[in-house]
Amino acid sequence: MAQLGKRLLPLFDRVLIERFVPEVKTKGGIMIPEAAAGKVNSGTVVAVGPGGRTDDGKTVAPAVKEGDKVLLPEYGGHKIEFNSKEYYLFRENEILGKWSE
Amino acid sequence: MAQLGKRLLPLFDRVLIERFVPEVKTKGGIMIPEAAAGKVNSGTVVAVGPGGRTDDGKTVAPAVKEGDKVLLPEYGGHKIEFNSKEYYLFRENEILGKWSE
Amino acid sequence: MAQLGKRLLPLFDRVLIERFVPEVKTKGGIMIPEAAAGKVNSGTVVAVGPGGRTDDGKTVAPAVKEGDKVLLPEYGGHKIEFNSKEYYLFRENEILGKWSE
Amino acid sequence: MAQLGKRLLPLFDRVLIERFVPEVKTKGGIMIPEAAAGKVNSGTVVAVGPGGRTDDGKTVAPAVKEGDKVLLPEYGGHKIEFNSKEYYLFRENEILGKWSE
Amino acid sequence: MAQLGKRLLPLFDRVLIERFVPEVKTKGGIMIPEAAAGKVNSGTVVAVGPGGRTDDGKTVAPAVKEGDKVLLPEYGGHKIEFNSKEYYLFRENEILGKWSE
Amino acid sequence: MAQLGKRLLPLFDRVLIERFVPEVKTKGGIMIPEAAAGKVNSGTVVAVGPGGRTDDGKTVAPAVKEGDKVLLPEYGGHKIEFNSKEYYLFRENEILGKWSE
Amino acid sequence: MAQLGKRLLPLFDRVLIERFVPEVKTKGGIMIPEAAAGKVNSGTVVAVGPGGRTDDGKTVAPAVKEGDKVLLPEYGGHKIEFNSKEYYLFRENEILGKWSE
Repeated sequence: MAQLGKRLLPLFDRVLIERFVPEVKTKGGIMIPEAAAGKVNSGTVVAVGPGGRTDDGKTVAPAVKEGDKVLLPEYGGHKIEFNSKEYYLFRENEILGKWSE
Repeated sequence: MAQLGKRLLPLFDRVLIERFVPEVKTKGGIMIPEAAAGKVNSGTVVAVGPGGRTDDGKTVAPAVKEGDKVLLPEYGGHKIEFNSKEYYLFRENEILGKWSE
Repeated sequence: MAQLGKRLLPLFDRVLIERFVPEVKTKGGIMIPEAAAGKVNSGTVVAVGPGGRTDDGKTVAPAVKEGDKVLLPEYGGHKIEFNSKEYYLFRENEILGKWSE
Repeated sequence: MAQLGKRLLPLFDRVLIERFVPEVKTKGGIMIPEAAAGKVNSGTVVAVGPGGRTDDGKTVAPAVKEGDKVLLPEYGGHKIEFNSKEYYLFRENEILGKWSE
Repeated sequence: MAQLGKRLLPLFDRVLIERFVPEVKTKGGIMIPEAAAGKVNSGTVVAVGPGGRTDDGKTVAPAVKEGDKVLLPEYGGHKIEFNSKEYYLFRENEILGKWSE
Repeated sequence: MAQLGKRLLPLFDRVLIERFVPEVKTKGGIMIPEAAAGKVNSGTVVAVGPGGRTDDGKTVAPAVKEGDKVLLPEYGGHKIEFNSKEYYLFRENEILGKWSE
Repeated sequence: MAQLGKRLLPLFDRVLIERFVPEVKTKGGIMIPEAAAGKVNSGTVVAVGPGGRTDDGKTVAPAVKEGDKVLLPEYGGHKIEFNSKEYYLFRENEILGKWSE
């Protein structure tokens, strides 16, 4: 998030996500996997909270990290706008999975 | 999931499932048990998350593994599409049972 | 379940049940207790999961075992069909009681 | 329950109850306390499960025992019939109190 | 409860209450505090269960005892009748407070 | 509560509150902060229960004490009347904050 | 909160927030990030409770402190007015994140 004039540090188990922009390459381009994955809801993790808290008050290390490509549920998440961009806040537990090559 | 251009690693206790395609063999073929089981909702586990987390923040080893044939509930699950295929994400606890020979 | 071409291993605290078929003996036969019990919902346990998991991730030994005759609630349970037979999956805790002679 | 051709062993914290039959004595009879109590829902415990299970999987000894006369809530309970009699299954925690002389 | 032909022992954290009868003294009598308190719902504890059970199965000593004058919520409680009297069963936690002189 | 002919001891985590009477000073008087605060719901703690109980049955020391000026939620609380006065019972956790000079 | 004639100390995990006033600079002024952030719901923490309590009665240190700039959810929070100003009380867990430069 170095490119942002201002940074948001999510609290607890919240994760800040920038959704993928659907890429469409028509002329001689190849439909890249990213685009295929774009049909489902995916994005990049831009900031991660310190982790949720157990009933006992202990902080649990988050399961995702900055830069992770993740699969998001169709509904849910908290849309916010700053620095002329749209972001989404999700509870870590709402994130469905991580994409790997 | 080696055949996939991209892999999805489910988070927590989520399990990625590829449903059985109902096989119908009419001409001299034999109706195999797979097909009979196809009437109920079954599929193959293609990827398993690291396991759910207890209230205390500990990870619990999952009860299913890649390759398991499983029985799914009629409703529920999260349908996703990538690599031109349909998959379903279930919480481990929603899976009803495992098929064995 | 040896007579089944395929076996289902229930997950967690699930129990696979085959319901009693109501027996009716008219000609000189005697109305056996089984039939009387058949008015309530009863069945035979055909397979038992390894046991439910506590909040802490430990597995709890199930309270019923294969072969037990059990009393079922009027509603609930998950009907499935395979090997040309109907079965029901119940959470162990939904089973009301065990029949003994 | 020795008089039953078949016995039901309730599971967990369930309790099998036989409700009091309202006794009415008109001719020179005295309205006994039992009958007065009959206006509220009361019954006799005929079988008790091994006890409920804590979140941790431990079994908790039940608070009622066979033969106890108990006060039942107006609603709830699971009516079952066998051996030509009506019984009710209650969760131990639903039972309001025990009658003593 | 010695005056009762039959006694009720509440189970768990239940408390048996006899509500105050509103006293009205018009002729030279003084409106006693009891009567003032009678406008709110108050009563006398006639029997107390052994105490509620924690998630862990331990019994917790009750916070009220026989003879306590208590303030009750406007709604809730379980009305029962026996020995020609009306009583109310409340969960200990529903009782709002104790009256002291 | 020494001025009361009768005292109420709240049970568990309940707190007895006497709401502020809105003071209005028009003639040369000064609108005191109390009055400003009166627009929100505030009051004085007149009695505090021994404290709530944890799942484990332990009592937790209350966070407010007799004499505290507190901010109350707009809704909720249990209105009671005795000694010709109106009081409110709140669960400690419903109280929003304490006023200090 | 030194400028306040009266201070509010939130209880438990509650946090007192003063929302940002949207700044608009039209004539040769620059639209500062604060204003951009103002489109989402943000504010300054003016007072923090001692922290929430675990099931076990222990107090958990809060994750925000006086002076923090925070991102708030669109809905929720408890609006209160005193010292001629509007404030909002949020449960710590409702606060979405902290802004940093």
